[in-house]
Amino acid sequence: MNLAVAPAWIAVDWGSSFVRAWAMSQSGQILAANSSDQGAAKLHSTQFEAVLLNLIQDWLPSTNTVKVLICGMAGSRQGWQEAAYLPIPLKLTSDLSASRVASHDSRIQVSILPGLKQLETPDVMRGEETQLLGFIQQQPDFNGVVSLPGTHNKWVRVQAQQISQFSTCMTGELFELLAEHSVLRHSLQSSDWDAPAFDAAFLATIAKPQAFMQRLFTLRARDLLQGTPKAQARAQLSGELIGLEISAMQEAGFISPTLPLAFIGSRKLCDLYLRALNLLGIEAQAYAAEHLTVQGLAAAYQELRS
Amino acid sequence: MNLAVAPAWIAVDWGSSFVRAWAMSQSGQILAANSSDQGAAKLHSTQFEAVLLNLIQDWLPSTNTVKVLICGMAGSRQGWQEAAYLPIPLKLTSDLSASRVASHDSRIQVSILPGLKQLETPDVMRGEETQLLGFIQQQPDFNGVVSLPGTHNKWVRVQAQQISQFSTCMTGELFELLAEHSVLRHSLQSSDWDAPAFDAAFLATIAKPQAFMQRLFTLRARDLLQGTPKAQARAQLSGELIGLEISAMQEAGFISPTLPLAFIGSRKLCDLYLRALNLLGIEAQAYAAEHLTVQGLAAAYQELRS
Repeated sequence: MNLAVAPAWIAVDWGSSFVRAWAMSQSGQILAANSSDQGAAKLHSTQFEAVLLNLIQDWLPSTNTVKVLICGMAGSRQGWQEAAYLPIPLKLTSDLSASRVASHDSRIQVSILPGLKQLETPDVMRGEETQLLGFIQQQPDFNGVVSLPGTHNKWVRVQAQQISQFSTCMTGELFELLAEHSVLRHSLQSSDWDAPAFDAAFLATIAKPQAFMQRLFTLRARDLLQGTPKAQARAQLSGELIGLEISAMQEAGFISPTLPLAFIGSRKLCDLYLRALNLLGIEAQAYAAEHLTVQGLAAAYQELRS
Repeated sequence: MNLAVAPAWIAVDWGSSFVRAWAMSQSGQILAANSSDQGAAKLHSTQFEAVLLNLIQDWLPSTNTVKVLICGMAGSRQGWQEAAYLPIPLKLTSDLSASRVASHDSRIQVSILPGLKQLETPDVMRGEETQLLGFIQQQPDFNGVVSLPGTHNKWVRVQAQQISQFSTCMTGELFELLAEHSVLRHSLQSSDWDAPAFDAAFLATIAKPQAFMQRLFTLRARDLLQGTPKAQARAQLSGELIGLEISAMQEAGFISPTLPLAFIGSRKLCDLYLRALNLLGIEAQAYAAEHLTVQGLAAAYQELRS
């Protein structure tokens, strides 16, 4: 094997599109990392073990068994093996459990962390709970709302290390569908960005969210009739969708003057949400998503061992 | 040729997905009809003439020249030849024009009807104006709003045979994208329908249109957690999108107690809109779309000749 020190355990974040693995020391240090694009959505349940072994083979001892702890979509019904959702309210730091997965290679002992489910106003998450667990390692006293923008944005009420309520907005997926697959795609292909156009579209949608359906097609018509720059139309669509999301989250109580608000995600997406909220006079903090997942997996590993 | 009487002219509705042609008598009777799936979106500009000739060859005389009048996407920038949009306000029955198209076969003389453009609140239509021209042949005194539900729903203010304002809602395309290409597709595949679920989702969206972005993902979560029937989820998505559309059209003044409202479209879609509006106590009439296009083309043909 290629590591100077044998890993105490192995952490894995297995999302829909990608899988990332880390060789971990007993004290929670990252000894090595590897990743591939063999996301859970691309695999049949019988293929997961081989993909995992291929990713971590250089770290495995010849005789001992190493524990592997996985979070994310590998635990979904269409994944490696279902790790049933745990109901909220749930204290991330003590109410955790993990499902053992049958594997054939004797060098690994695999477990998958469950996702979370909300029964009243049905909702589910899988993977974000581990990022949140990493977040509360850094911010144990956080009492507010954490938003994790991405394909399916999660808005999560966190208090005393407990998740009490959450809501999923398909904002990212809607942007992708409209920008890449609808008639608007002809008018939005640009790698540039028009910040003032984003701001104006965001504020117009906050002021009249019910006019959303009428505004969409004008992005196409403006291009046809006025040759509107594509970067402008792209920023407008983003502003409209985020406006619709913020409007929904205000309505649902996830955004309120009395609740601290934190964003976890890519720098670019977090900046967009912070900019939008700033237009409404709402303050929020952004936290880099990097390493939060592995920190969460490390916290879960310690918790499950104790 | 296969017709007992030579056609006086030929009417063509060339949409994005399909092309339909009719051999017409001088008095506006349909002598024969033909169609194919060679829609404008599938063709390069150089291919249109061959497709047309293939469709109408049995109707053509060996010596004379027959006029062919086309409406729809064949006149778009990506079509056979662009027929520039006419600006509104426009009187359908007298402000019409048509663009001559260069063709190689001496047996045909081809013209394409223009689409319409609205400069204030940019919007465009191409094809619907011909259906509306057909509609006002039947309802010359109509003073109200005509809605043409489809992929891109048009809402059109019609008064004294004039179009003064219109708005396009991408409701049909959004339904298609979400039901067939988003994560919701796993929870919506059904050919059944749940009318009470449609009603409830429609009314909930009318009551709180700003909560749309929060409601979408619950369609998926309900399936995962409660095994909600897929017909129910499909009807709910439809109710939510039409709720968002009706809410926008109320806001924009296209739906008002003082304006008669007419729907032109497929029986199934019209029924859905009438059912929804009925829940709000709003009356509307539905008109079958069939033959309105050819009636519109016939009216345009008479107008252009006179």
